[in-house]
This record gives sequence, structure tokens and C-alpha cells, in this order.
Amino acid sequence: MKKLLYGVAYYDEYMPYDRLDQDIQMMKDAGINVVRIAESTWSTHEPQNGVFDFTSVDRVLDAMHKAGIEVIVGTPTYAVPTWLVKEHPDVLATTPQGPGKYGARQIMDITNPVYLFHAERIIRKLIGRVSQHPAVIGFQTDNETKHYNTSGPNVQLRFVKHLREQFESLEELNRKFGLDYWSNRINSWEDFPSVVGTINGSLGAAFSQFQRKLVTDFLAWQVALVNEYKREDQFVTQNFDFEWRGHSFGIQRDVDHFAASQAFDVTGVDIYHPTQDDLTGIEISFGGDVARSTKNNNYLVLETEAQAFTHWVPYPGQLRLQAFSHLASGANMVAYWHWHSIHNSFETYWKGLLSHDFEPNPVYEEAQTIGKDFARLSPHLVNLKKKNKTAILVSNEALTSIDWFKFNMNSPLNYNDIVRRLYDELYKLNIGTDIVHPGTESFDDYDLLIVPVLYSAPNALLEKLNRYVENGGHVVYTFRSGFTDEHVQVRTSRQPGVISEACGIHYSLFVEPKNVTLKDNPFEVAAEENQVDTWMELITPTTAEVLAYYDHPHWGKYAAITQNRYGQGTATYIGCVVSPAVIRELFRSVAKQAGVWGADQEASYPIIVKSGTNELERTVRYYFNYSEQAGSVMYPHGDGKELIGEQTVTQGQTLQLEPWSVIIIEEA
Amino acid sequence: MKKLLYGVAYYDEYMPYDRLDQDIQMMKDAGINVVRIAESTWSTHEPQNGVFDFTSVDRVLDAMHKAGIEVIVGTPTYAVPTWLVKEHPDVLATTPQGPGKYGARQIMDITNPVYLFHAERIIRKLIGRVSQHPAVIGFQTDNETKHYNTSGPNVQLRFVKHLREQFESLEELNRKFGLDYWSNRINSWEDFPSVVGTINGSLGAAFSQFQRKLVTDFLAWQVALVNEYKREDQFVTQNFDFEWRGHSFGIQRDVDHFAASQAFDVTGVDIYHPTQDDLTGIEISFGGDVARSTKNNNYLVLETEAQAFTHWVPYPGQLRLQAFSHLASGANMVAYWHWHSIHNSFETYWKGLLSHDFEPNPVYEEAQTIGKDFARLSPHLVNLKKKNKTAILVSNEALTSIDWFKFNMNSPLNYNDIVRRLYDELYKLNIGTDIVHPGTESFDDYDLLIVPVLYSAPNALLEKLNRYVENGGHVVYTFRSGFTDEHVQVRTSRQPGVISEACGIHYSLFVEPKNVTLKDNPFEVAAEENQVDTWMELITPTTAEVLAYYDHPHWGKYAAITQNRYGQGTATYIGCVVSPAVIRELFRSVAKQAGVWGADQEASYPIIVKSGTNELERTVRYYFNYSEQAGSVMYPHGDGKELIGEQTVTQGQTLQLEPWSVIIIEEA
Amino acid sequence: MKKLLYGVAYYDEYMPYDRLDQDIQMMKDAGINVVRIAESTWSTHEPQNGVFDFTSVDRVLDAMHKAGIEVIVGTPTYAVPTWLVKEHPDVLATTPQGPGKYGARQIMDITNPVYLFHAERIIRKLIGRVSQHPAVIGFQTDNETKHYNTSGPNVQLRFVKHLREQFESLEELNRKFGLDYWSNRINSWEDFPSVVGTINGSLGAAFSQFQRKLVTDFLAWQVALVNEYKREDQFVTQNFDFEWRGHSFGIQRDVDHFAASQAFDVTGVDIYHPTQDDLTGIEISFGGDVARSTKNNNYLVLETEAQAFTHWVPYPGQLRLQAFSHLASGANMVAYWHWHSIHNSFETYWKGLLSHDFEPNPVYEEAQTIGKDFARLSPHLVNLKKKNKTAILVSNEALTSIDWFKFNMNSPLNYNDIVRRLYDELYKLNIGTDIVHPGTESFDDYDLLIVPVLYSAPNALLEKLNRYVENGGHVVYTFRSGFTDEHVQVRTSRQPGVISEACGIHYSLFVEPKNVTLKDNPFEVAAEENQVDTWMELITPTTAEVLAYYDHPHWGKYAAITQNRYGQGTATYIGCVVSPAVIRELFRSVAKQAGVWGADQEASYPIIVKSGTNELERTVRYYFNYSEQAGSVMYPHGDGKELIGEQTVTQGQTLQLEPWSVIIIEEA
Repeated sequence: MKKLLYGVAYYDEYMPYDRLDQDIQMMKDAGINVVRIAESTWSTHEPQNGVFDFTSVDRVLDAMHKAGIEVIVGTPTYAVPTWLVKEHPDVLATTPQGPGKYGARQIMDITNPVYLFHAERIIRKLIGRVSQHPAVIGFQTDNETKHYNTSGPNVQLRFVKHLREQFESLEELNRKFGLDYWSNRINSWEDFPSVVGTINGSLGAAFSQFQRKLVTDFLAWQVALVNEYKREDQFVTQNFDFEWRGHSFGIQRDVDHFAASQAFDVTGVDIYHPTQDDLTGIEISFGGDVARSTKNNNYLVLETEAQAFTHWVPYPGQLRLQAFSHLASGANMVAYWHWHSIHNSFETYWKGLLSHDFEPNPVYEEAQTIGKDFARLSPHLVNLKKKNKTAILVSNEALTSIDWFKFNMNSPLNYNDIVRRLYDELYKLNIGTDIVHPGTESFDDYDLLIVPVLYSAPNALLEKLNRYVENGGHVVYTFRSGFTDEHVQVRTSRQPGVISEACGIHYSLFVEPKNVTLKDNPFEVAAEENQVDTWMELITPTTAEVLAYYDHPHWGKYAAITQNRYGQGTATYIGCVVSPAVIRELFRSVAKQAGVWGADQEASYPIIVKSGTNELERTVRYYFNYSEQAGSVMYPHGDGKELIGEQTVTQGQTLQLEPWSVIIIEEA
Repeated sequence: MKKLLYGVAYYDEYMPYDRLDQDIQMMKDAGINVVRIAESTWSTHEPQNGVFDFTSVDRVLDAMHKAGIEVIVGTPTYAVPTWLVKEHPDVLATTPQGPGKYGARQIMDITNPVYLFHAERIIRKLIGRVSQHPAVIGFQTDNETKHYNTSGPNVQLRFVKHLREQFESLEELNRKFGLDYWSNRINSWEDFPSVVGTINGSLGAAFSQFQRKLVTDFLAWQVALVNEYKREDQFVTQNFDFEWRGHSFGIQRDVDHFAASQAFDVTGVDIYHPTQDDLTGIEISFGGDVARSTKNNNYLVLETEAQAFTHWVPYPGQLRLQAFSHLASGANMVAYWHWHSIHNSFETYWKGLLSHDFEPNPVYEEAQTIGKDFARLSPHLVNLKKKNKTAILVSNEALTSIDWFKFNMNSPLNYNDIVRRLYDELYKLNIGTDIVHPGTESFDDYDLLIVPVLYSAPNALLEKLNRYVENGGHVVYTFRSGFTDEHVQVRTSRQPGVISEACGIHYSLFVEPKNVTLKDNPFEVAAEENQVDTWMELITPTTAEVLAYYDHPHWGKYAAITQNRYGQGTATYIGCVVSPAVIRELFRSVAKQAGVWGADQEASYPIIVKSGTNELERTVRYYFNYSEQAGSVMYPHGDGKELIGEQTVTQGQTLQLEPWSVIIIEEA
Repeated sequence: MKKLLYGVAYYDEYMPYDRLDQDIQMMKDAGINVVRIAESTWSTHEPQNGVFDFTSVDRVLDAMHKAGIEVIVGTPTYAVPTWLVKEHPDVLATTPQGPGKYGARQIMDITNPVYLFHAERIIRKLIGRVSQHPAVIGFQTDNETKHYNTSGPNVQLRFVKHLREQFESLEELNRKFGLDYWSNRINSWEDFPSVVGTINGSLGAAFSQFQRKLVTDFLAWQVALVNEYKREDQFVTQNFDFEWRGHSFGIQRDVDHFAASQAFDVTGVDIYHPTQDDLTGIEISFGGDVARSTKNNNYLVLETEAQAFTHWVPYPGQLRLQAFSHLASGANMVAYWHWHSIHNSFETYWKGLLSHDFEPNPVYEEAQTIGKDFARLSPHLVNLKKKNKTAILVSNEALTSIDWFKFNMNSPLNYNDIVRRLYDELYKLNIGTDIVHPGTESFDDYDLLIVPVLYSAPNALLEKLNRYVENGGHVVYTFRSGFTDEHVQVRTSRQPGVISEACGIHYSLFVEPKNVTLKDNPFEVAAEENQVDTWMELITPTTAEVLAYYDHPHWGKYAAITQNRYGQGTATYIGCVVSPAVIRELFRSVAKQAGVWGADQEASYPIIVKSGTNELERTVRYYFNYSEQAGSVMYPHGDGKELIGEQTVTQGQTLQLEPWSVIIIEEA
């Protein structure tokens, strides 16, 4: 990007009356310099099969261009028109719940040729028409694309063919997936049942992986279409989203973000997060780290909340804090879902910058200050480069396999809970983090690698991790890592299998802790924070040092947390679910061992510090106060200038931070 | 009615052995003077297609007539026979859950012509046979009729035709319903999808309204059939029911009681309510007010509980208290579901006046005292006329639209919760209330109008409310009133839209309160009663006086409750969900302003006062004690006679009320 | 049996690599002398329609035989192969949820002729092949067989024919089932609807009974097939299971264990139970009592847990305690599910004796001590004969009818909850118990009969119970007993109907207790244990003595618990749900009256005493300590020898019991 983008999603099509000129004037007043259009309005642009009407697109492009506002055009394929479904009901995905019903978006079978035929035609028509328009800076393909659990007969057939390519023989597949169990064995490819009812986690996980591949392929197909039309100065992006818990939470189970992002010029994401008293910045940081790591580059926040819901209307200052938080993680664009609040249908209460009355309001007024600062500070803040020494290893395969093999009968914890329990403490300790994945070529750029619940992994990956430690890397594993192979088959060796070598431990039994604590409170946390819950492995160290034993009448002889020096590095193993406080203390200690502890880590949440290098090759440091109370922090770095207030800052100076505020220092 | 009716539902068909004579003797002993029969026994009366057998009807009519007990005959159409479903499975309603399964009652498609053909034939056969019988005083059509969410293809087709008549063009429909959103736009009538899967609340609400119209039409069709046979001295009624929460709660979402009751001579309802320690009389009062208001006339309680369930078996005194409570709201009939407890099937534990053993029991014995008093006091208590100065405005359209657009992600509150939160306080303050609705021609008879959550309403209604205030009326609105139009499209003006004029306020933001109270506790309630929950609008007054501000670090500058003088009247606006105590104090104050505060309002729950004018043109006053403790109240009205104990009462005298008891005073 | 069997389920087919010799060696080391094979691996043994491959069976039989380990071979019919489902999808049961989906076991229609054809063929092939093998000591038919709620059109048709045989006429059926209600009347057999949607509990309960009969018939059919092949020294057994609440709980609703076990030579069961801090031994005792009572003989525990789940991994000592507990109830075999932990699919975390690594582990090591003791003590412990003077009467019909007619709107209690609430106190008081059922010919062997919630029962059974009391028996009934007949039709007499005669009480009303206690705490329990919950009958005694009145302002005049002398015996009636403590005190008192109170009852839980007579005609007494704390108990019986430690024990001696330990004394 050449500049910071400050944007909104804009739908002329949804407007209750013609407001284009007024809206543009209000956008200009707020410093909005980009709008995203068209990705959900297929039925407006193709009102009948083969009849096209791009009036609203044309007029918005022209008006925006005239006003100097740039435009990202979306392919309108994630919500199918009524006429298409009426003609061809089977464009809707058949899922385990049965055939689809028209109504919502994101309900089609992304492999259905009828759908693909019509999708291709509207993409070519729309993108062909707009690509040369001077307002258009880029394109988005589809939106929050997932596989929508499409699993009808046609998808099952392709899955079987996919497996046939993957395995040498049915015999091998039966063996790797353990299909003899409960007579699930498949002795002829023709006998392959739909996996919708399967109780075999290996088969189920393979299907999920196949479904994720469908998404990768579908998006790559769209990108190839758009690439036929796009100018050299334009980009293609995708709006990825995350596990949804009423807000963005962890990695997305239905898409492999790392694989799917390869086809794109730049990664885009949407990030929604709690706010008001619950605003922490963690989701902004986590989503940003994922997005940045997909291509090791800057990214776009294509959607985030303005007013949104009744429980998210930001307190004064929060909208600013959020906007700059995105930049501090490497975003080059912050755009709101959406410009105005919608007057009908599903998202009526997902409010935009403007309320339904289109009048200025406190949130819009705060946006005006952001737009002004973005414009002024763009040369200093755009294209921030970050170089982290710590990474966290996430895996779609581990996530899916934990979905199949949960922690116990009652626990609601899933894979992302554990990822986040670790990530959140890194965040709070101001340890900047990249996100790596099983396909990452090398971990050698990192001094510290955090590996949560790597439940399903091939030997090669685990051996690479052993070598990483041997060569001086520091790894922190949690429980259940290395337990199964890439087919979710439990290893027959002593656990934790391949990584036992680096970890210097083994275990055979694991139990559900009740009233179990860490013996003698080794991390000196509050009593309730010393509890162990959900899962505990009964670990016997071989060469490892025991950092914590269990306190329990029968399991007290087993280790809970261990650390092993192996070659030039260390492997720390957490054998049980521990509290955030224990994780924090453990990370503090390991970070120091790994040499990733510095001046920024002396501050901690709610004071958050992020940094990077700008296009002027200067270090930019963000200080955030995620708190209702004012805060302060000693500035330990080289003299510089605070960019918002334009004040000089000198080393050792105490920085004052208003509630929910940000300070940005550019070193000299 | 010429006299008070005291009745039971009676099914000779369900009897385990022939007991007709014994039952009639026991009824006579209890003063039962009417029975309701036949509405659920189609398969007995038409055992095979076109084969009729009315033996049980004939013998019951003859025996009742001989005993001087009158009979209401129901059309037996709400439970379909097995042979009909076997021949024509599609008489069962297709719902969003799929095709129907035989078993329960109320599962048919009330628009299905096969059903209608057979229903018409059994109606004509039965009513034609019994209408001239001297025992028959009236007829009930069907029972608790609703639309049973019938929504199969035939219903969808009729809905589309219905919309085509309602809208000038598809273009208008698309615009009013906001169908461009998520590509839901319909560009040709042939493309109209089934709305079963719709995520568009405008479309969904229109379908619900259409479904309610199906009920109105179906009932009118039945009434027309019955009218062909009925004598001049006979009536046709319907047994309407209410939102069901294990007991009658608020208005019925699936029927427009006001529209549907027009075809009938007299409105009937069933009212079931908590009892034992939880007996308050509120459901009796609410259901009665609705029933009475449908035709501004007396009504029948066709069903209410005798013993019912284990948690409803009445304490001594409660059955009497309940019976007279119905009369005090304007009922001319109180009938029990049902005479005897049933020995098989679904309602075995919905016990009647008699237990399964048919022996006298404490509940039956208390009924004997009621029957005696009804008979003796009938000339004084029948046809009580009520004239209330306060009304509450309810709306099926508001209810449905709030179902679509709930308060927030977690709140279980629906429309009726808010209606009841207001109604209950009126009840407890002894402010007698009528129920009005969007179709009510004029509100001018009322001095005080309570308008809860009028979320969906046409401009005309809101302007009429503005004029009502201007002309001296007093209105209390709650939050979210006026927010959307009749198509559930949010207004584009500043909120609360049209009624801003009378209310003298506007707002743009609304949030979910956490730890928010009313500033300085303006209504002087207990601390926990001063909390705000679920929903709060950030109100800015223009001309209104602020009755309460929020206490919150960021939203403290906004008003929570306001009052505006407008023309000759006042409009009070409650912008947030407040406690019953706050509502009570606010109502106390507004009632005084509106001049609807009198001597009866000086007493309050658990002492409940109801009054009206009897056929002797005398004022009758009921005093109820809804409490386990004895109570007393000063009698402030003119001298009269207590009718039950036949004692003289003089003004200023202290009335003593036993636990769970009633006193009835007829002024001289 | 000639000796105690100590076994495991073993699946060569599931092994990730060839381990047969190693496994056998480890089994030998642990004293495992029997394995159960083949019952779930149809698709391995018949990889294609009509193609058979018994390699794994052959090699396991040969190897086991060589090692002196015996084998039970299961018919592999409870999990259907993919090819069968692909060819004939309708072998899967149609249930109320619709057609089946392939994946899990136990999903077929056990009446489907295509299924039966193929099942018969594989049974004949497998059993024909192995029956003469010297390793094979017996056979298991299918596994945990139930009806899987098969209820498609073919099953409905058979059900109608079944009813036609049972009832003289449709008229009779309509009357007994009360089908006039809600027009459910069936006037022609052709009109019979599927009962899947029925709301008639009589019809629904009849269908459940019919479904249980399908299981009995299916198992008898399998047994007849196997009997064609079995040698005289071989047995046929079945692995019955219990109501499942995450562990075995009460009697099985889907199988009549008493009827179904008739076809078998010996009854087998699986018993899974809580452990760690929650180990009580109750499920072991209850399941054992049921199994033993089915044929009044010893039984096999074909499956129980080894490590199992994270919350069940046994503490040191518990595996031993459990194993001997089975023997003390009359088991001749204790076998684990399963030998090794499985590396894929549904039960990966249902761990066996060995973990996934096949290495020795603490649980396996404890099993070694058990195997050694079983072998050594077999002559003293095998074929233990028990003679109990107390029985508890259970009924599938009562269970089903309570499913239809629950206690109230909110209570989660079902039939088994009440059975267990009573059984558990008998267990804790060390009152040895048989299980009898409505088909039991005579109760005369018992001095005390406990009858929980016998809600549905024919007159004949109730009259037999009256006679039992009259002749000197002692019965304890709970609430709701005798309420309905065998068709779940409520009796029209005063309640509790037929048994009123022996109980000397009647009632007509029953209510849900709120804040109700037993007046004056007659059983002197803690205040919270004196509460009544869920259900209370308002009892009037005629000849009975009142043991407890209710304490309640309105219901205080009614009795809660009564006792009546009737003929030579007594009938105690508990009219409400009372606490375990009240039940315990009541049982203590009644047991003394009935003369079933002896020295063993002076000890109580956590010290559990069980006894019987061994093949040497000597009395064997087990003392268990189900506690984390050491315990002691005075030994009151004749001198003998403690079998495990081989120490002499004399009368009056104090026995010391380690935590979670057992002592076994054989009287001289």
C-alpha cells in the first residue's frame, strides 16, 4: 500500500433513499478514503438469469472517484439470487442436516457446477466492467468463504477419489484409519459410505481437511478469474474470518488460512472483538498476527466493528484505540462493517458508523479524529515491518482432531481455548508473536516456539521440532502434543512419542484432575491459580528437570511440568491445564532463557507495547492503555517524537496514558 | 347471558364405564349448570369416512336436558381422525420441521381442502343434528385454534398471492422489506422462495401476519357454517388461548384475537395460571381484560384449572377466589378443564374437578360452595359492565417483530415480558385496564394509555397517538416504540421517529446496560430495584423533562426516563428496562397526573379491588385477598351489602379479608 | 464354570502391528485365562458379500490354545459392514429421527430380512468354523443388543399384528388405551397410524414392550443358530448392559433382561461404574444382582473398565477391589474392556489394561496380582451360591410408563432414580438383595420385598402382593405404585388401588412439595435430609399407622409414610420422595421387623459385607473397604481363614481394612 486506508463497507443498494452525495460528503469529513462494495448483492446486479444491471456499481464508482475515495470491489458470490435457487435448488449445499433452505448467505455448495457456472459469469461481467475504472484499487473474492459443511453425494464422491490418490491402497487406508474397528472396514472403493455419519475420527478429520481444500481451490479459482482482468496496480484480497464465539476468537476450523492466502496479493481479515469494559486488544493482536504471518507481510482489516451491537458500542476513546491497535500489528487498512446501519433484515442491529438516522453521532465523530490522524501520519505508520523472535505453532489438523477427541466428557474447552490461553499471556507480557504452522519451512528465525496441543502431526514435523531444539531453539509444548500422527492414529510408542526425545519425559496414563494443585505452588501464584483442571498427564521424567509436581494422594509422584535441555536448546512440557497465571510465570522464565525478554516486557497489560520499522527505516513504538484507569510507563528506548501529539520523547521519560488511549513514538 | 354459567368440559366418550347419571347427580350437587362437549372426539362421531355415530352426543344432551344442565357443543375439528390421515396424509400441516406426524391434536393444515371438506361435513352433520335440541345454548367452533405453523408449498403460494395484492409491485416489496440485502432480492414473482428459511424479519413478520389471517378466515368460515343452523337464542363462541409458558402468559402470537373474535357472538377464552403460593390473579385479570376488550362485552371462561397439576392443586379457598376473580373481570361463565381426570393419554395428570376415582374430594367440595353462590348471586353478578379510563395497547405485529429482533444476544425477554411487566404493576395498583390494539378506532375514551414496545407500527397509528396526547391524553411509552414501520423497516428519521414529536426526545445510540442504575434513585426504591437491565437508549431530551438519568461513567449524560407536556397531555418515555418497583412508582405518579387515581388505588396487591355495574344498575365491588395472610382494607365507597355473607357495609368501615378470600359489595 | 475366568476383550484385527505372541505373553504374566473375540469385526471376516476370511480368528484361536488361554467367540452381528449397507441401505433402522446413517455400531433394523439373511450366514460360517476348536469354551451372541428404536413401516405393521393378537377387538383396544381422547380412536385396523408421533402413553408403552420383545426374539434366534454348532461343554451367553448415564445405572429400558436371558446358558453383563473418589461398588452390586437373578445362578462380567477414561483411571487398590466385588455378587468371570487401548476411532480414550504403548503400567501391574489371586483362590471363590431374604421388584413396564408420565414438569428423576435411591440404601446397610420382576413365579422365598414405583401393573400382580403380605411377607411400596393397570390406564378405584387393601390407606390428591418436611422429623435425620421433594400424595390412613405426617400449612393433615399390619405381614407405604437418610432409617426399622437384620447389618458403608457358599459348602465372606481411609470391623461369625493373606480369623476379632481393599474369609 502507498498509504493507510481508512474505510467502510458501503451498499448503495441497501439505501432507503438516494444519499450518495450526502454519504460521500460525510465520508470525506471523516477521512474515509476507501470503500468496499458489491460482494453481497448478486441479485441486484443480475436480477434475472443472464440479465445484468450494474447501475449502482457504476454510479458509486464514478461518485467515489470524483470525491477521491478509492474502491475495493467484491465478487458477489457468497449470497445466491432467488432465481438461481429456484431454477437449480441443488446449488444449495447438502449438509449433515439435509438439503439447504434458501434464506441466509453462505449456503451454497461451492463445488456445484451450476453454481460455479453462474458465479464465473457474474465475476467476469462485474470485474470486466470495473477493472479499468480509475477508482478501483483492488478486488475481494467472495467473502468469509468457508465450505459450509457441504457434504452431499457429489462431495462424498470427490472425497473418495481424493483419498484414493492419497493412499496407496484401501488396505493402507483401512490400517491408517483403523477401520476394522466396529466393522467400519471398507473393502472396495464402491462400498465407501458417506462419512456424514462416521464415528471414526481419522476419517472425519480427513474429510474436514478435504473440505478445507475445497475452500482453497475455490478461492484460487476466483483469483485466477479476477487476475485475467486486474491492472498491475490493483490487488486481489480475501476477507478471512476466525472462529466465531459471538466475536473473533481463534483460528478458523473451516479454512486453512495459510494455504488459502497463497493465491492472493494481500491478506485481508475481519476482526470483531468485545469492547466497553471487556476491550483488551487481544483479538486485534491475534487476528493481526495470523493475517500478517500468512504472507509475512502487511494486511488489510476489511471489517471491524463501529457501533455494532448494544454490548459493543465503544466508550469514548475506544474506537481510536482499536484503530491504532490494528496498525501496530501491521495492518495497512482499517475498515468498518459498515457505513450506515441497515434498516431491514438480519443485521439491523449490527450498527455501522452511522445509526439508522444517518446523522452524526459520537462514534462517527470519533472516527473523524482517526481519519484525520491516519491521513496525517500515513507516511510514518504505513507498511510497518515487524520482526518477532517468538512464534506460536497452530495447526488446523490439531484443531480438527481435538474436535473429535475432546478433553473429557464435560469440558467445553477446544483447541482454540488452549491456543488462546497461551497466546493471551504472550500478549499480556508484550512478547510479540508470529504465527507459524505445520507447513512453515523453517522455525530457525525464532528463538522461542510455543506449541499448544499439537495433537495430530506427522513424524517429520515432530522431528523438525526436535532438531530445532537441538540447534538451540526453545520450545514450550502443552499436553497431548505429538499424541497422534497425521491420520489421527495414536502413536504406539511411549508418549509423547517423537518429541519424548527432546522433552526427556514419558507417560502412559492421563487422568482428569479433581482437587489437584501444583505441589508447593512453584510459580508462587494465588491459591486458586495454582489449581490444575480438565486434563493431566502422569509424567515420568527421564532426563528432564521437573518444574512442578502434582499435589495429590495418588498421583503425587508424577511430574506436571518439566524442562529438558536438549542439544543447544530446551524443551519445556506442560502436562496439564494450568491457570493463565502459571502460564505467565512460566513464559516469563522461558522467555528469559530464550533471550526474548527485553525492556518492552517490563511493562505488561493493560499497558501494551507494539513496535516495528516504518518506511523511513525508523522504529515506531505504540503504547496502548487498555484500561478505564490512566496509566504510565517508563520509556526505555531511544529519543524520539510522539506522533499524535507531536511532542519530543526522551529515554527514561515517564509516559502518561489516558484511559483507553494510545501514544505513538517514532525513534529519531 | 341470562345467568352466570358454572360449567365443566365433559366427555362421555372418555369414560371408563357408564357414569352419566352419577356424574349428572354430582354436577347438580355442585351447582354445575352447563357442560361443554364434543370438540375433540371426531373419530368417535365419524368412525369411518362418511359413517356417523352421535350416540354419545344424543344421550348426553337428553340426560343433561332432563337434569336442567345446559350444553355448549363444540365442532370436533381440532383433532383429526386416523382414517382421514391414513387416506390423505397431507391434511397434516407441513411445518419448518417437515411433514406432520399423526398423534397430537392441532397438527393439521387449516387451509387443506381435504381437511376442509371433511371438517365441513362433520360440522354440518353434528350441528345440524343438535342445534334444535333444547339443552343446547350455544356452540364453540374448533378449540384453541392456531395456524400450527402451516407453511408448506400450498401455503407459500397463497402467501405470495397475498403479498401481490398488498404491494403495488415487486419493486416496492423489495424496497420495503430491504431484500437487496444478502442478495435476497426477488425480481420475478415466480422466483419467490419459501420463506421458511428466510433471515429477513420483514418477510418473516409478514408471513406470521398472513398465518394469523388464515386463523381468522378459518374461524369465520366455521362460524358461517354453524350460523346456518343455530337458533336465535343460541350463541357461537371460540375458546381462545394465550402465550403459553406452562400457564397463560401474554397475548397469543399466532392469533389476532381482536380480528378473529369479530365473527363470534361472544368471546370465550381459557385461562390457566400458577396457584398455591404463586396465585396472584394476574393471569385471570389479564386474560379477562383481553377477552372483554375484544368485543367490549362480557365473555366466557370456557376452561380454567380445577386440580390440574401437582403444582397447581389449589389451597383451601383458592378455587373460590379464582372463580369470583373471573366474574370481577367481566366473565359470565367459569368452566373447568375438566369434569373428571382422564385415565389415559396426554392429559392424565391434568386433573379435573374429580380425581380418577370419581369420588368427592376437597376441590370438588369447594366447587359445591361456588356453584351454590353463583346460583344465588347470579342476578347481582351476571353481565357486569366495566368502564376503565386506562388502556394498554398491544400489537401482534410488535410481538412478532420483537421475536425477530430480540433485545440482545442473551436476554430471554420477549414482547409479552414487557407487556406483562407493565400490566402487572397496573394490576397491583388496582388500576383497571382495557386492552386496545392498532385497529382500535379511537383512544379517546381513555385518560391514560400504556404503550409497551410498539416496535412495529405504521405512521398513521403513531400520528394518532401524537394527536391523542395533544388532545389531553396521557401516554407512557417504553423503549423501542416507533422504531420500525409496519414492514419492520427501521425509520430513517431520528428515533423514536414519529412519536419524538410528542415525547420531546431523540436518540441515536442504544447499549446493553452493565452495572447501570438510575442516577440518585429518583423513584426511591430499594437499591437492587434501581438497576437497569437488558436495554438502554441514550436519550437526549429536546423539550422533555428528564425524570431519570443513567448513572454510568460514560453514558451518564443521557436520559433514561423523560416526560413531555405536549398540547393538553403528556407523553412519558421509558428508555430502558427498569424494575417493577420503578414502573409502579412511575405509574403512581402518571396515574395521578392523568386523573385515574382514586380511592381504590389506595389499596394495593395483595388486596385487589375490581368493580363494575350490574344489571340492577348498581355498582358491585369485589375485594380479593391474594395472600396466605389475613388482610384488611378501609371501604371508601357508598354503603351497601356484602353479597356472600349478606352483611351491611358502610362507608369507612374496615373490611376484614381471610387468606385467599373474596368479599363482594353491592352499593345501595 | 469350573474355575474363575479372568479375561479381556481382544482384537487382533485392531492391532497396529503383529503383536500376538507378545500380547499372549503379557496376558499369561497377568493371569488372563480367557479372551473374548470377534463380536464386532464382521467387515474383516466377510470383506465382501459372500467372501469370507477368518485368518485373524484362526490364528488367535491357535495361539491362545497353545498358551492355555480359553476363548469366547462372539457373533459379529452388532456392527454391519459397509458393503451390506451400500447394497441394502434399508438394513439400517428407521427411527423417529428418520432413516439411519452408516457409521456407528448398533444402527440396524434387527427385524430386517436382508440383515437377518446376512447375519445368519456369517454366524453359521464363523461358529461352524470355530465350534470344534479346543480353545473355544463358549459363545456370545451379538453384543449389548437392543432394539435401537427401530420403528419404520415394517415394524409398525408387525406391531399392529401383535396388538391384534393381544386384544379381542379394536373396540377393546380403544377402550383400554383410551383412544377416544383427542380423536385418536382407531376404527379399522387399516387406519392404524405409525405410533412414532403418538401422544398416548398406553400405546407408546405397548410399542416399547413390543420393541423389547423384538430383542428377546432376535437373541433367541441367534442362540438357536449357535446351538446347532456348539459342543456340550460350551456355553452361549449374551452381554447385557444397563441404563447408561455415562456409566451403568439401573435396569435397561430397551431389553427385558429376565425374558431375554431365558435362551442363554449363562447370563453375561457389562458393568461400568464411577471410580477414583466416586467408587462405591453400588453399580457392581446392582448389575451383579440383576445378572444373578435372571437365572438364579452365577454370571459373567464380560466387560468392565480397566483404565477407561481420564475420570476412571483407578487409584492403587481399586482394580483389585472391583474384581473381588464382582465375585462377591456371584460373578464367575471378570473381563476388561479391553486388552489394549485402541489407536483410532470412537473409543480411543476408552483405555484398556494396556495403554496405547503396550508397555506395562500401574494398572496392568495391579491386574497381575488379581490374576494370580484368582488362579490360586479359584476353588474357594468360583460358583459362589447366594441366598438372600430380601428382594427388590423391578419392572420394565413401570419404567416405560414413568417415562411417559414423569413426576412433574421439571424433575429429571426417572424410574431408575427411584429404584436406585432404594437399592443404594439396602446396599449401604449390607442387606443382600435379589432382583425380582412381574414374571417371578413366587415371592415366598423372601421375607422383605421392596417395590419402587410399580406404576403399571396388572391386578393379578398386585393381588399376589396382597397375598404375600397376608401370608407374612413384608413389603415396602413407594408412591405411585399400583396407580395404573398393565395398559397404563389409571385405575378408577380409590388409590393406591388394589394394594390399598394391604396398605390400609387411600388418597385422591397428590401435589408437588415446596418447603415440605416430615412433621417432627420422625426419623431423626439432619434437617436437610428431612425434606420432601418432587412428589407427595395426600394420604388418608384407614387401618394403617402413620409413620410420618407432612409439615405444611395446608397439607399437614395428610400422611406421608404409613405402615399397615395385614394378615401375618406388614405393608409400608412411602407416599413422597424422601431423602436417602430417611429411606435408610425406615429400612433399618423394617428390616428388623422382617427379621432380615443380622450381624452383617451392624457394619455399613463404606464397609461392605457380602457372602455366599462355595463349592466346598463353606461360607465365604467378603469384607470391602470402599474408602480412602483405613477401616475396621468386628468379625462376628465363625472362625475361619482369610484367603488372600492366608491368616486365621477368629470370632470377635477386629478386621483391619486398608483403603480400597478387600478381605475374604472362608469359615471353617
